[in-house]
Amino acid sequence: MSASGSNLKVAILGFGTVGSSVARILCDLKPQGIELTHIYNRNISRKLADWVPCEVQWTEEVEDILASNVDVIIELVGGLDPAGSWVRRALEAGKSAVTANKKLIAFHGIELEKLARSKGGHLLYGAAVAGGIPVIPGLQQGLAGDQVMRIEGILNGTCNFILSKMEDGAEFGDVLQEAQALGYAEVDPTEDVDGYDARAKLVILSRLALRADLDPNQIPCRSIRDVSAIDFAYARELSCTIRQISRAEIRGANLATGDVLASVGPMLVPKASPLAWSRGTENTVLVGGKYGGDVVFSGHGAGGHPTAVAVVSDVISIAHGSRAVDLPSRKTTIGGEFLLRHSIRFVVNDQPGIIAEIALALAEQGINIHAIFQKPGFGKGNLPFVVTVEPCANSALKRALARIGAMKCLLEKPFHLQILEPEETAG
Amino acid sequence: MSASGSNLKVAILGFGTVGSSVARILCDLKPQGIELTHIYNRNISRKLADWVPCEVQWTEEVEDILASNVDVIIELVGGLDPAGSWVRRALEAGKSAVTANKKLIAFHGIELEKLARSKGGHLLYGAAVAGGIPVIPGLQQGLAGDQVMRIEGILNGTCNFILSKMEDGAEFGDVLQEAQALGYAEVDPTEDVDGYDARAKLVILSRLALRADLDPNQIPCRSIRDVSAIDFAYARELSCTIRQISRAEIRGANLATGDVLASVGPMLVPKASPLAWSRGTENTVLVGGKYGGDVVFSGHGAGGHPTAVAVVSDVISIAHGSRAVDLPSRKTTIGGEFLLRHSIRFVVNDQPGIIAEIALALAEQGINIHAIFQKPGFGKGNLPFVVTVEPCANSALKRALARIGAMKCLLEKPFHLQILEPEETAG
Repeated sequence: MSASGSNLKVAILGFGTVGSSVARILCDLKPQGIELTHIYNRNISRKLADWVPCEVQWTEEVEDILASNVDVIIELVGGLDPAGSWVRRALEAGKSAVTANKKLIAFHGIELEKLARSKGGHLLYGAAVAGGIPVIPGLQQGLAGDQVMRIEGILNGTCNFILSKMEDGAEFGDVLQEAQALGYAEVDPTEDVDGYDARAKLVILSRLALRADLDPNQIPCRSIRDVSAIDFAYARELSCTIRQISRAEIRGANLATGDVLASVGPMLVPKASPLAWSRGTENTVLVGGKYGGDVVFSGHGAGGHPTAVAVVSDVISIAHGSRAVDLPSRKTTIGGEFLLRHSIRFVVNDQPGIIAEIALALAEQGINIHAIFQKPGFGKGNLPFVVTVEPCANSALKRALARIGAMKCLLEKPFHLQILEPEETAG
Repeated sequence: MSASGSNLKVAILGFGTVGSSVARILCDLKPQGIELTHIYNRNISRKLADWVPCEVQWTEEVEDILASNVDVIIELVGGLDPAGSWVRRALEAGKSAVTANKKLIAFHGIELEKLARSKGGHLLYGAAVAGGIPVIPGLQQGLAGDQVMRIEGILNGTCNFILSKMEDGAEFGDVLQEAQALGYAEVDPTEDVDGYDARAKLVILSRLALRADLDPNQIPCRSIRDVSAIDFAYARELSCTIRQISRAEIRGANLATGDVLASVGPMLVPKASPLAWSRGTENTVLVGGKYGGDVVFSGHGAGGHPTAVAVVSDVISIAHGSRAVDLPSRKTTIGGEFLLRHSIRFVVNDQPGIIAEIALALAEQGINIHAIFQKPGFGKGNLPFVVTVEPCANSALKRALARIGAMKCLLEKPFHLQILEPEETAG
């Protein structure tokens, strides 16, 4: 209930898939002390739903809501503008805001939380990362007593859908089309497949888990577009699959003394890792604590209903006077690269001396070959094979591959993937 | 910080494994606004640790702490008495309490939470279920907006250690001894292996997730003592493993209209289920929501450090003025039995007519046989085989087995296990 003891008045901004799920859950469950009063959308006449109680005001004017006595706005419009300015104005007016807007929180979350606190309101964003999986409340409440040293996650359901379909033999382009037809991918899939969506979520998790405030633009992102079905065949040889992995880690005893490493992109993931288990649009987040060891969260990371659960849970928290634990974070620059094993796939017109030349180029960068193998069934004129190398920096490998790329026998650009190593940070 | 704005004064009651881990984390991380002031234990001279700051008072007298200006007691003594009366007295004095005591919360949690609220204090018990895995804050904060229809969990690390070792071929008695030597099992392992520890945790989770307040004594518990290595061999034939599963479920649209079913005991778990993945002392909890679908939490459920993380997180929540969302529950009686497929292992002196007699006894109870199979390598004089049956109530199967048990050819009592079916409650 609001400070006055009366019901908490709630407005939904954006009546798309998530917004209508939020309204549906509020109407079905009728959580105590919460009253849906307004729904905003453009072209509202297209949106009117007969199952919404008639007391609810439908409006095309955000100003009506910002000027009203609504206690909480639920921002589900997305993007930085105008959604960000609506959230800011609501907080300035002493209202609380609940949002699923990962981009807004990644870029402006710290400033907006400060604003909320200074005006006596709340800013909650449990739906911004991993939809219906309570990772954010888990970090703010349940793991606040640990010192989290690393996070690894499958944070983008679209990429996971595509890659788990490719694991069954399909090619990227075909699955992307299927994902678009199913509504899992946008017409322009850049945000998802090139890693920017996951990167915004990684920034939010790094802030809460590692207490490191990273600049999204500093985090290297690699697209999953270049992964092909043959890479899954070689992944199987290594007892791995391929997933888009977002990871951030403190190297050293803690944030004050250690570097933070972070990246987003396709990786080889050992089948024994919990990160290899999620199928379809599921999300998984692994949190490695110094004291508590590894904790894994998994479930439906997107979709109207799961995301709406996170939104409604945040509204209930506010209604119950529950405050998010304020976890102080510090501005942190990324201080290096992960040193990881890599797998490199070559496709060549086979001839003597190829391995020698590759080995030399790797050796020049201080990179040791671990294994070389090829799947049977290909002719010498179009021969794919894979080289795995011992832990090295991505940048060193790229320098070696730049030199190797000039080799005439290559039929395709070499394609490399980092291998996610199982690590145990438990105390 | 406490109401007065000064540091929150915290006392640890019980300086065993968890208590000393709590002190260690408080001393290492120095969470803002929290001050460890007292440590209570019997025979305190055995316990004194030189890394604890000298300002901390060590005492053998709980009364000193209850009479002091301590804001929060951390109760890690366990059991109903005297720990329960200490918590009650602290709450009556307006202090807050953080506890890992599942038994106390299972039997008296509702009354104690009411007391805490009436006196302006808090009662938090994130460590009471699944140690370092933030299931309780996940339910109270992140899933409060869903209607949870079922929970399934591996809630007892000792049983999971024993059963995952048996999966690798060991027999119960040997692994129990190993678990005792490692400190994972008590000298009297009854609470763990017979299911009472898991049952108390299931009661707590049912209250928070299903909003059903169950009487622990009503929940059927079955021991894992009778599981033997051969059962794992047959489980593999069914693509299953065996785990101690605690489950509770609402049958019907919601708690007001549906029955609650609950049980604790060994079950066949399909290898594809997340509940089959936890090894060693790990815990896993699956929460099935009407709107958000299945969410899985897994990690270290016990041990000093993981449990201490949950305790310290609760203390931090109190220090930050964060309140647990009060999820109203209602007194609920268990209204029936799970209808599940079963697997029954027989060991016989083989002779004609055995299957006919078993089939008849099952048919009399309306139970259909699904499959019959046996592993090679056994003689006719000591032949184990397995019968799987279509979904039926445990009680009906028990009646059939009572009749079958009188058959002269049986060399052992038939041993039956329920099969955990994958179910999807997502909306």
